[in-house]
Order: sequence, then C-alpha cells, then structure tokens
Amino acid sequence: MQIQEALERVRPVDTGAMEATRRKLDGLIKPLGSFGRLERHLIKIAGMTGSSSFDFSKKGAVVFCADNGVVDQGVTQSTREVTAIVAENFTTGDTCLNALCRVAGAHVIPVDIGVAADLGATGLLQRKIGYGTADFTREPAMTRDQAAAALEVGIDLALELHGEGYGLLSAGEMGIGNTTTSAAVASVLLDLPVERTTGRGAGLTAEGLEHKREVIQKAISLHRPRRTDPLDVLCKVGGYDIAGMAGLCIGAAVAGIPVVLDGFISCIAGLLATRIHIGVREFLLPSHLSDQPACDLVLAELEMEPVLQTEMRLGEGTGAVATFPLYDMILEVYNHMLSFEDEQMEAYTPLV
Amino acid sequence: MQIQEALERVRPVDTGAMEATRRKLDGLIKPLGSFGRLERHLIKIAGMTGSSSFDFSKKGAVVFCADNGVVDQGVTQSTREVTAIVAENFTTGDTCLNALCRVAGAHVIPVDIGVAADLGATGLLQRKIGYGTADFTREPAMTRDQAAAALEVGIDLALELHGEGYGLLSAGEMGIGNTTTSAAVASVLLDLPVERTTGRGAGLTAEGLEHKREVIQKAISLHRPRRTDPLDVLCKVGGYDIAGMAGLCIGAAVAGIPVVLDGFISCIAGLLATRIHIGVREFLLPSHLSDQPACDLVLAELEMEPVLQTEMRLGEGTGAVATFPLYDMILEVYNHMLSFEDEQMEAYTPLV
Repeated sequence: MQIQEALERVRPVDTGAMEATRRKLDGLIKPLGSFGRLERHLIKIAGMTGSSSFDFSKKGAVVFCADNGVVDQGVTQSTREVTAIVAENFTTGDTCLNALCRVAGAHVIPVDIGVAADLGATGLLQRKIGYGTADFTREPAMTRDQAAAALEVGIDLALELHGEGYGLLSAGEMGIGNTTTSAAVASVLLDLPVERTTGRGAGLTAEGLEHKREVIQKAISLHRPRRTDPLDVLCKVGGYDIAGMAGLCIGAAVAGIPVVLDGFISCIAGLLATRIHIGVREFLLPSHLSDQPACDLVLAELEMEPVLQTEMRLGEGTGAVATFPLYDMILEVYNHMLSFEDEQMEAYTPLV
Repeated sequence: MQIQEALERVRPVDTGAMEATRRKLDGLIKPLGSFGRLERHLIKIAGMTGSSSFDFSKKGAVVFCADNGVVDQGVTQSTREVTAIVAENFTTGDTCLNALCRVAGAHVIPVDIGVAADLGATGLLQRKIGYGTADFTREPAMTRDQAAAALEVGIDLALELHGEGYGLLSAGEMGIGNTTTSAAVASVLLDLPVERTTGRGAGLTAEGLEHKREVIQKAISLHRPRRTDPLDVLCKVGGYDIAGMAGLCIGAAVAGIPVVLDGFISCIAGLLATRIHIGVREFLLPSHLSDQPACDLVLAELEMEPVLQTEMRLGEGTGAVATFPLYDMILEVYNHMLSFEDEQMEAYTPLV
C-alpha cells in the first residue's frame, strides 16, 4: 500500500471499545486499577482493535535487518558482517530474540530490508531496498524513493500479519551502526544537540563515543534535514531498518493491531511514524526505558509509560518481547477473573 | 526448624558460582551486560544456589493468608470476611494470582497462617497460628511465641518446597488490613513518621487515610516497639502474613533458593527478615516498585533494583509472579545462546 493511501486509512481509536474494556476491568473483584499500566495498555489496545475482546495467541516479533553506510566511519565496535550473520541466525533460532520468543510463545519474523549481502536463509523475508545505505557523512543515506519504498515494506508487512491473525507485534531491528543513525534522527526530530542523543551503542570507549558524535554532527551540518519533513530526515540520516519499523507502525494503525516498541532505535522509528501521522501514536505501546541517552525524551514525547525497568540494551526487539507475557497475564485476568456482578458483591468505590 | 538453628544455617553466598555464571554470560554473543538487571539477578541466584546451572521449571507462588485485629478500627475499605473468601479462591483458581500463575507456569501455594475462620478448602495449607491477630491499638498483635511460631511456618515451608524441587518462589500475602500493619512495621524499622509510610491501601478516601495514620501512630506510641529487636516489632504491630513471608525468606537463605518479593507488604517482610539476619538479603529478589508510599525506601534499604514498573498494587504476590517469565527468558538465553568460543569469534571488549 502506498504511503499516502495508508495515511488516509489510519484508523481513529474506538472509544466505545475502550470504555467497554474499562467497565469490564472495573467490575472485576480486585482493587480498582490495581494492574496499573497493564490495565491502561489493555484499554489502549481496545481502542486500536475496536473490540473489547482480545486475542494475543499469535504474537510476532518483527525484526528488520539492514546495514548502514556510516559504519565506514568507524562508529561501531562490531564490523558490518555481523548484521548478515545475525540476520541468518534469526532463522535458525540462534539469537537472543529467538530465545525470548521461545519463552513468550512468539514467532520471530526476520526481514532483510537492506543487508549488504545476498542472504538466502529460508524464513528470512526478502524485502531488500538496497545493499545497505550510503555513508551519510558523504551523501544522503538513501533517496526519497528508497525511503518511501522501505516505509511501504513495513506498512505491507503489518497488513499481511494482521491478515494472518497476529494480535500483537513487536518492532525490532538488527543493523550494525543503527544507534548512530537513530541518534542522528533523534537530534533532528527533537532538535537536540548530538551530546544529548548519542550513546555508546553496543560498547564504545569514551574516545569512540566522541568520534561518533562528531560523525553525526558532520552529517547533520552537511544535509540540514528539515525537522518538519520526516521523510527528509529519514532519507538523509536514517536507515532502512528505522524506515521498516516506522512503516510497521503506520501499517498497524491502518490494520488496527498493537505494535510494542523496543528500545531507542525502535522508539525513534515510532516517533518518526507519529511525525508522519500523529494518529499512529495510539497504536504503539512502550516496553522498557533503554539506557541510550535520549530514550527517556523520546518516550516522553510519545507520552508513553514503559512497563519494564530491566536496563536491557540489546535491541532486536528483545525488550518488547519481554513484555509479551505481561499481556497474556492481564488478558487471563480480564477473561477469567470473577466479577462483582458474578458474585453479587458491592464494587469498590472509585476514589473521586 | 527453630529460628535460632535456621539463623545459624543461613548460607554464605557462593562467589565461585557467581563468577562462573558471570563468565558464561560474558562469553555469549551479545553486547556485554546487555540484559542489564536480569543478568545481575541470575548471577545473584548462582550465589544463592551455589551452582552456575539453573532450574526454574518448578515455580511456586506462596501466599500467606491472615487476618489483622486492627481491622476493627475501620482502617480498610473491605471487610474482614474477604480474607477468608480469597484464601479459598486461591484453591479454586479464582484469583488474580491464579490467573498470573497459569501464564507463568507457576503453582499457587496458599497457606492459612492466621485467617479468622475455619477453612477446609483442599489445597490450602493449614498452618494457623491464631484466628487473626489482636487489635494492636489495644494490645500487642501477637505474643512473642506466636511471632516465632509464624516465622517457623515460613522457614519450614521454604525447606519443604526446596526439597520438592522448587527453583523459584514468590512471597505473597492476603489479609485485609495488612497495609496498615506493614506501614506500622515500616515506620518503626526505618524510623519514619507514619505520614511517610502509610498509603491508601486498596482504596481509602483522604479521610480514611488520615484515620489510618492516627491508628498506626496510636499503636506505636502505646507499644513503643524496639527498632533494634525485629521480633519485638513483629509481635507488637505486625501480622501473621508478614511473619510467614519473613520466615520464608529466612528459610530460603537456609535452603539456598531465591525468593522474589512482591510489593510493599512483601518487601517489609523481606526487610524484617534481613534485620533478623543480614545474610538473608542475598536470597531475595525485587519485582516492582509498589505505589504504597514507603516502598521506594524499603527497596533502597534492601539495595534492590526492581525490574517492573507496572504500577501494580494488588498484592497476593502478583508483581513477583509477573517477573517469573523474565527469569525463564534470561535462562533460555544463558542455556542456549551461542558463545564467542563456539563461533571462534573475538569477544566484546569490556569498557574500563
């Protein structure tokens, strides 16, 4: 689906379904609101799907794999080849994401949206827009057409997975160099100095961090991405993985399915999607506060309340998948807990 | 097992097992320490069990049920009968704790340690010390012998469950009035004014909260519990449920098994146990930060880093059980993730 059509089809939230869910939760025999953020998230999901009945039995951990040209500038500890290795490992069960998904009962859905190698692994969705982006210290990371195409990969995948009966998705990524691209996008979208948005990624030294900041500043000064034009920001200093995740968020808003964001990179993609269409925000859920420096600001901008404080910083969507059992739990309570009505008891009085 | 004997048998942590676990985690192909608190908790568990192999397949959600005499003072929204009803509901699957345990694959282990009614439900462990405590605005909640006996119930249960192969326990409670007792214990143990420790419980009005504070202050002024004598604090202003959970923590430290604490009441029991023997602290894990007012201070005193920020406030051990899947997840990573050695790759260089 083309972006423009998708944006026209972003669903309004269903306040009736939200209210019905809230009423049912308030009628269960337990202190009012005592599952805190989990109750608020379930109500939010009702707004997305338009129903006060939920089905999380089919969960998908989407992970967009892509290389970033800026890696040539020495901004990472790992080498580019790691992207391809891990992308294939998603199909053999040998990543941290696979481990978490085995426990959570979720399917790993890896997508080659821009790995700089030809990968033939069975189970890796082939949606390559390019063999990695260009080095954005020299030229824009991608063309505007490539950015649009990468967004559409995500949009179409959300629609496809919704059609296959998935009820809960996570937006993950694998791409060496993508905390660099994310920090660049964050600096532009939030109008922040690179010192505030750039962290050590998977494990840079202090010297490496300083260099990474200089590289990002150089790209921003060179391209001057327009903060009010998200596609301009994406194509000049973004990455295919970020584009894919942002597209997934937009597609979710068309299909009416929740997407759980992961850490910094995933949240940046979520933010980008909401800058393209503010209505997308209602279809996103937070997971944890990553320790990459600007994640708190991005979550605040998205008005989101994370549910984990694990200090995870692994990416791939691991933080998002770690929240999946919490949704199974609140749903089990919602579906099977006794209500005051069942028991002919007087409900708790709401405070104020 | 008598308290004195248990205290002599509190195990020292096994630093060798901790180091072996840390080494294995650091050798896995992922950014160093990228599972954050989950890695640190797994290392802590190795110190408890004395092994760098883990088995969380059998998980138990222990829930101590007891009534509190102070309920006569009108400090709660619910009536006393609710304790007995919910205690029996644990055996029929009809509580929020049961719902969460179904998802987490954990067994609910309800214990009648002091419900003010004769309960015959199959599956409810009969360990009653008394028919509820005395109203502590008039007399001590229990005698010193009763407090010791209630602690021993918890100690013995931990040893028993360890013998049955449980690898992970949670310490939960059910007892109308137990945020009142917990706030009283917290005020004494942490030397804090009742305003800082007393919250709305399951849902008091502002007026109700003010009354609850007066009731607690009255009891403390009347009995003057000695802060340096935890058993004195427990018997004067505590409850049987708090005693049972504190005993469970002590027994866990004897058996070498992790206990995940829940919210405020459970954390107060954990604090009480560590005041009885500081070595117990190494056998406790945090779950979430309850919104009862002093929970942050108690967790800080225990030097604990919660992993959930769900704003749950339900009790029963629900917050603790909500963390169980996270332990299954980190263990799946630990057991099945490829190592740098397997792949003959160079490991990440530690920072510093």
